[in-house]
Amino acid sequence: VKVAILGIGLVGGSIGLAARGRAGAHVCGYDPDPAARGLALELGAIDEEAPDIATAVADAGVVFAAAPVGVLAQTVLQALASAGSDCVISDVGSTKLALDSARRDPRFVGGHPLAGAETSGVTHAREGLFEGATWYLTPTSSTEEVLYTRLRDLIERFGARPVAIEPDAHDRLMARVSHLPHVLANVLVTEAAAIERAGGTGPSFRDATRVAGANTAVWTDIYLANRDALIAAIDETVGRLAEVRAMLEAGDARAISEWNEQARIDREALLGPDSKD
Amino acid sequence: VKVAILGIGLVGGSIGLAARGRAGAHVCGYDPDPAARGLALELGAIDEEAPDIATAVADAGVVFAAAPVGVLAQTVLQALASAGSDCVISDVGSTKLALDSARRDPRFVGGHPLAGAETSGVTHAREGLFEGATWYLTPTSSTEEVLYTRLRDLIERFGARPVAIEPDAHDRLMARVSHLPHVLANVLVTEAAAIERAGGTGPSFRDATRVAGANTAVWTDIYLANRDALIAAIDETVGRLAEVRAMLEAGDARAISEWNEQARIDREALLGPDSKD
Repeated sequence: VKVAILGIGLVGGSIGLAARGRAGAHVCGYDPDPAARGLALELGAIDEEAPDIATAVADAGVVFAAAPVGVLAQTVLQALASAGSDCVISDVGSTKLALDSARRDPRFVGGHPLAGAETSGVTHAREGLFEGATWYLTPTSSTEEVLYTRLRDLIERFGARPVAIEPDAHDRLMARVSHLPHVLANVLVTEAAAIERAGGTGPSFRDATRVAGANTAVWTDIYLANRDALIAAIDETVGRLAEVRAMLEAGDARAISEWNEQARIDREALLGPDSKD
Repeated sequence: VKVAILGIGLVGGSIGLAARGRAGAHVCGYDPDPAARGLALELGAIDEEAPDIATAVADAGVVFAAAPVGVLAQTVLQALASAGSDCVISDVGSTKLALDSARRDPRFVGGHPLAGAETSGVTHAREGLFEGATWYLTPTSSTEEVLYTRLRDLIERFGARPVAIEPDAHDRLMARVSHLPHVLANVLVTEAAAIERAGGTGPSFRDATRVAGANTAVWTDIYLANRDALIAAIDETVGRLAEVRAMLEAGDARAISEWNEQARIDREALLGPDSKD
């Protein structure tokens, strides 16, 4: 199968490496930056480069649009316009509602692998990036079954776990498990910086703020693309903080204890019991 | 020098290992749990065990009270009552204002190493736990200089970086860099759990919530011991979240961009430029 990758950064490059290394695919890559294409060739992330989207997707059986959120919709629409009927087009964007018009095409299946993040660029790409990762897919009732199966099988070859989800459920979930953690990381560093620039912070702060100030160009688009769900998540956070504040103000050790214990249970349910290691 | 350790868990045990391995000290350990004392002997964290605090601190030149926050004050006061005049008594508690009365004794210097956290118990203790870590100390104008120097030198032998700080500045700082991250981690898992118990979360969520539901007994005491500073930090967080919400609501890409960029700058100032690795 020929796989086309549109946008060759960390995720696009890793898809190329995995498609070549784990699925024996022939990979054709397009990126608006010719230097990124050359680098991808050198690093073995693609077999050949294409000068434009139409050339990249010609004869492809699977297309991954891995462009930044800000240009993702137009990339997907161009791919749909150029690709043949026996081709499944997917993307790797962090929000899924934004690609509303593409979802009406039976060849399109939105996707989002939960991998990568704090580094960027094809130089950080690696074949095993998706190993064990959840890879959300948003098929609809009009999706061509054979194309969906082809995409899902390929993703499994990458070592990922494909999970079907509704686009709006996906976006609400991402607001909680990705976009809100980024917002809170930013808030944490800003508050700490306001009172201390030299002293120590410790491991909990380092981990909690690992994603603070993540790639600004990328994340401004993500925050805005999912702003409704993110606003809802912020409102919920403010409500929960008010509850914690009330427990502290009352000096209610039992309530604080129960709240903390529930968090332990919740984390285990979400991430598994061995997640503290 | 003889070092006494009162409370042999992760931090106490690691102090024992570091004092023996890096400073050639003779270490005597007390813990209310005889099993913990036996385990500490087996693991080489202490040279001898003591059946009570008075025995442990007899003839000691340095005492570390490493008991949980809830019983820390009484442990320190008992140590001060039993120790000789040529002995420096310190602690490793997460808040420093709570030990107000002890601070009037010229032999007492409050302390707090920024290390350890998500595991507990002497079985997780290790000699290198404090390597490169900031170790806050709260000497006062009445502190005996020679005793303070002895403590500071020993801590440097552990590989840590001693930093003098005012107790209230310490507690405000900890509210921001440790206690608030714990609160937000708890809030994050609770929100995510409310909408999803099975699906994937991704690396930013895993890191942001690493400390969620940390040892409930320990953390209930910490939250309450520092509740004034923590309430202030929560109020500040709510204010900052309101600002982010307004930017999102207005769809203000430029403001979001600047805010995220400032977070990147703040994080670098706090944790250094290589902190994304």
